[in-house]
Amino acid sequence: MIEAAGNRLSKPVGSTRSPPAFAVVDWGTTSFRLWLMDSVGTVLGERRSDEGMTKARNSGFQTILETHLCALGAPDDLPVMICGMAGARQGWIEARYIDTPAHLEEIIANAVTVPGLERDIRILPGLAQRDPANPDVIRGEETQLLGTPGLHRATGACCLPGTHSKWVSVEAGTIRRFSTFMTGELFAALSGATILRHALAQKDMSQENSPAFKRALISAHNEPTVFSHSLFTIRARSLLFESTPDDAAAFLSGLLIGMEMAGARDYVSGGSQPVTLIASGRLARLYALAFRTLAIAFTTIDAETAVRDGLRKAAGAIWNRTESETTI
Amino acid sequence: MIEAAGNRLSKPVGSTRSPPAFAVVDWGTTSFRLWLMDSVGTVLGERRSDEGMTKARNSGFQTILETHLCALGAPDDLPVMICGMAGARQGWIEARYIDTPAHLEEIIANAVTVPGLERDIRILPGLAQRDPANPDVIRGEETQLLGTPGLHRATGACCLPGTHSKWVSVEAGTIRRFSTFMTGELFAALSGATILRHALAQKDMSQENSPAFKRALISAHNEPTVFSHSLFTIRARSLLFESTPDDAAAFLSGLLIGMEMAGARDYVSGGSQPVTLIASGRLARLYALAFRTLAIAFTTIDAETAVRDGLRKAAGAIWNRTESETTI
Repeated sequence: MIEAAGNRLSKPVGSTRSPPAFAVVDWGTTSFRLWLMDSVGTVLGERRSDEGMTKARNSGFQTILETHLCALGAPDDLPVMICGMAGARQGWIEARYIDTPAHLEEIIANAVTVPGLERDIRILPGLAQRDPANPDVIRGEETQLLGTPGLHRATGACCLPGTHSKWVSVEAGTIRRFSTFMTGELFAALSGATILRHALAQKDMSQENSPAFKRALISAHNEPTVFSHSLFTIRARSLLFESTPDDAAAFLSGLLIGMEMAGARDYVSGGSQPVTLIASGRLARLYALAFRTLAIAFTTIDAETAVRDGLRKAAGAIWNRTESETTI
Repeated sequence: MIEAAGNRLSKPVGSTRSPPAFAVVDWGTTSFRLWLMDSVGTVLGERRSDEGMTKARNSGFQTILETHLCALGAPDDLPVMICGMAGARQGWIEARYIDTPAHLEEIIANAVTVPGLERDIRILPGLAQRDPANPDVIRGEETQLLGTPGLHRATGACCLPGTHSKWVSVEAGTIRRFSTFMTGELFAALSGATILRHALAQKDMSQENSPAFKRALISAHNEPTVFSHSLFTIRARSLLFESTPDDAAAFLSGLLIGMEMAGARDYVSGGSQPVTLIASGRLARLYALAFRTLAIAFTTIDAETAVRDGLRKAAGAIWNRTESETTI
């Protein structure tokens, strides 16, 4: 009996349950998400934990994976498709970066097999931009792109916000170039490890309802040059005008996202279609508000659905090409 | 007998020693520096420690000060002039900010007396820029400006690099406006609390001899918009091109100073005279290289001499106007 942790994603009670065909795993630095799927990609079960790469390096990648598979009653020979930091040099097995420009299909073609195991386990590679003047790397987000509908036809930009936000230029299924912005990590470092901590209430980017967010966003977008000074105005505003900690956090979020949008200007202007925002929850709302405020056309794709669909496509292409929708 | 910790600054052995007329203290967040002076400002003794405001809040400002005065054999009635964070709201006694525009003389006129003590102890105020669109504060650097020669005549910009770099526009002795850039603190937060720590060797801004410093400086100065992306190239360069930790630190120093110089552009262009760089040691060398690289004319004033002279001027003006050079 398979226990479905994500019941809302399971088939309706009473329907005939298909057997699992594979498991897929999004294995990040600090998070682990696993889905059990049937041959057409229906989710049969789900597991989530904080056993990301950092913890897995201590407790063992295989141990963690098998524990979660066992909890869902997965067969011993069920194949597993993985993306994310498990494939980093300091991860389980290195899935070496493929170089840009790269077609989305190349991600699947370059999956590496974890050697020496009974179970067939593959890890998808990240992407490298080996331009000495503008080097960059992606690991994990490429699978979200793989699972985003329409990218094999589209010419345009994708925005994948997060700790390290990624902007990606895609042309008819080929990733041309990308840029990483340290937006989320800058928020954490500035609010935790600088004098701004006295002015801020919290350590999450948010407060999309505050006018301070929009004000800072527009200011940083239009005048990114004074960024490092604008940061200090958060401290000064707290001392001189007794701004609230919530407003200070909203202002910092706005500044950082405004800086990102300013830096990504040529991605926005280079696309013939609206920007595809690939995000979930709070970040999706925050970036949607930023796009609307800056009058940038966009459509939203749920990031979790995208990574699951990307993993499903890769698994389907490798293990049951004839049964699933493997067209990218 | 007075023990002079800073012997190089004392009068030559054998000369007739003047009695001390006052002590002056630069009391920052994490540092304490005290000089004993005679009536014309000759340094008779010196003390330095890490007992800045942060430590003094626990062990007591008066205790720390008296311990250092005692170690130099200072008389019980010797007056003391202080600048810096000892005058902050969370310091010893608040020396409230004076508002810009402010003449340098107003700093002296607004010194506050620590109440309830036998000894006459004064603390100089900081400056506040109460512009809601561009609020800012200074505390400590105003005394360096007070001690910088020629500012009562000059129209120009001063650059005071540090944890929080200050750029100040001065017109004939009046501080018109100023901007704080979080350059030094950004370096510390980025190199200590983000993924960049893996790429960096150290936690001090430096490596002025590295070509990476100049390259990053020019890049950030000319294209500040992509700052948050440029930061991540440090990580990517380390992964893809195996850049050295020293080069990574030099690149980060260059990026941050380049951002500061880009943000301070209107200070540079607004002055009719070279920028006055008020700095010491490693920071002075680093900023001098930055100015030369960006072809910005500048002159250098030693920051420690400036703060000591600023304190001396204030002390002379208040306690022995007739004997010392109190003209600002």
